Amino acid sequence: MTTNQLPISNNKSTIVVKLGGTEGVDFSAICQDAAALLKTGQRLVLVHGGSAEANALGEAVGYPPRFVTSPSGFTSRYTDRKTLEIFAMAVNGKVNTLLVEQLQTIGVNALGISGLDGQLMVAKRKAAIRIVENGKRKILRDDYTGKIQQVNADLLNTLLDAGYTPVIAPLAVSEESEALNVDADRAAAMVAAVLKADTLLLLTAVPGLLKDFPNESTLIKKISQSELESALEIAQGRMKKKVLGAGEALEGGVGQVIIADGRVENPISNALEGNGTVIE
Amino acid sequence: MTTNQLPISNNKSTIVVKLGGTEGVDFSAICQDAAALLKTGQRLVLVHGGSAEANALGEAVGYPPRFVTSPSGFTSRYTDRKTLEIFAMAVNGKVNTLLVEQLQTIGVNALGISGLDGQLMVAKRKAAIRIVENGKRKILRDDYTGKIQQVNADLLNTLLDAGYTPVIAPLAVSEESEALNVDADRAAAMVAAVLKADTLLLLTAVPGLLKDFPNESTLIKKISQSELESALEIAQGRMKKKVLGAGEALEGGVGQVIIADGRVENPISNALEGNGTVIE
Repeated sequence: MTTNQLPISNNKSTIVVKLGGTEGVDFSAICQDAAALLKTGQRLVLVHGGSAEANALGEAVGYPPRFVTSPSGFTSRYTDRKTLEIFAMAVNGKVNTLLVEQLQTIGVNALGISGLDGQLMVAKRKAAIRIVENGKRKILRDDYTGKIQQVNADLLNTLLDAGYTPVIAPLAVSEESEALNVDADRAAAMVAAVLKADTLLLLTAVPGLLKDFPNESTLIKKISQSELESALEIAQGRMKKKVLGAGEALEGGVGQVIIADGRVENPISNALEGNGTVIE
Repeated sequence: MTTNQLPISNNKSTIVVKLGGTEGVDFSAICQDAAALLKTGQRLVLVHGGSAEANALGEAVGYPPRFVTSPSGFTSRYTDRKTLEIFAMAVNGKVNTLLVEQLQTIGVNALGISGLDGQLMVAKRKAAIRIVENGKRKILRDDYTGKIQQVNADLLNTLLDAGYTPVIAPLAVSEESEALNVDADRAAAMVAAVLKADTLLLLTAVPGLLKDFPNESTLIKKISQSELESALEIAQGRMKKKVLGAGEALEGGVGQVIIADGRVENPISNALEGNGTVIE
């Protein structure tokens, strides 16, 4: 079989990059680096967060965010229907639109979509979530968050093959067709898995997983898949979801996951050179 | 040539439907009717507005909208950069997302995009707009509105051929890659033209163009292309843009334009039966 008989999708390496929304990560540097990468013929998908924007909009409209912690120590946004609509406005309406604009400015034909669009990401709604508040366990209902079950690879491949760079906002559609807020790190992991990406890059505001957070000199440079469970114990706060996502991506067939610094110049190529925590 | 040798795009009739954002138009009835239409094998593209939501969000965040009137009597939203971001949040983030959700709920695989995505709609920015205020002419600068020059038909055909129903938010990208607010009626007209649609349907909160607005018994049932200029004089307020859009659509090769009532049961099929102002 000659190369041109292969589907286009298999000819190039695929990279999925998650850009943090909370932490002063340099979107402009990431976009510039993404444009350079695309010129080398790589297939690229971006997934973004937007917590900071959602928080700011919630405050501005008089409906501030509420964060809850699960018994196992994971923090997440409590998302009633009104919060979901604020989240959609901020994340899908502002962050996604302006990121697409920024990429268009430097010649990347970006196309923004959320997980609702074309059923890109179908999630199972967590209708009741257990939380710990003031030391007491409680159950919250009417929460519109979910865990992704399925990603529409056909849609992504259709867009990639047609020359567009998908920019994904972390909303999903439930099995009952409700809009759901999903974790962007784990969304990126599921997207990378379904595309069998060579690399999943999780860019954040630290150099990688730190053994002794926030001491940046304690960067863990390499983690094998078998060490992920102990890495999960080391990870603090939102880093836990990145480690969880890394495990899900590797299980799904992704070549490597790199948790790396999004504050530096050339953040994508820097990470691809192995700077960060490489998990494989 | 047998039918299955034709490109899919040419096998079915194409309908572009604009749903008004301001006027109490029944989105739910339109969605139900759209789902029924899709089952008959038609190709359907939806374009929506969202002025009411943008106004409400502007008020909520303490940055209320400002409307301006041109010397020739057209009213439009004055859109500085902050207003543009509010507009994007409301229209792309809320109206588009929730419309896609509503369509997904009834089995339509909707996919929301704005004109920025994949350069779907490229517009010329009106950097200076002339307005009349308190009887005086003024020039406003820093306005982020535009007039659409080009629609990416390939993207729409790619999505339609893959089985998705595009739902378009009225944002465009300028030739300098800036995000712009565009008029949704005229966006729908340009989309219909580039797809050579059989029908462009402009659904609103009146039964069509009224000779003596707001007297609904003065509905004009038929207008020929040559009568559009006088129709433009009859049209009041935002109806002017619908008449302008109708002219642009017909010039672009659209079969017919129907301005019809979006408040009734089965608004799409009702209009397709000729109820409304049929322009051809």
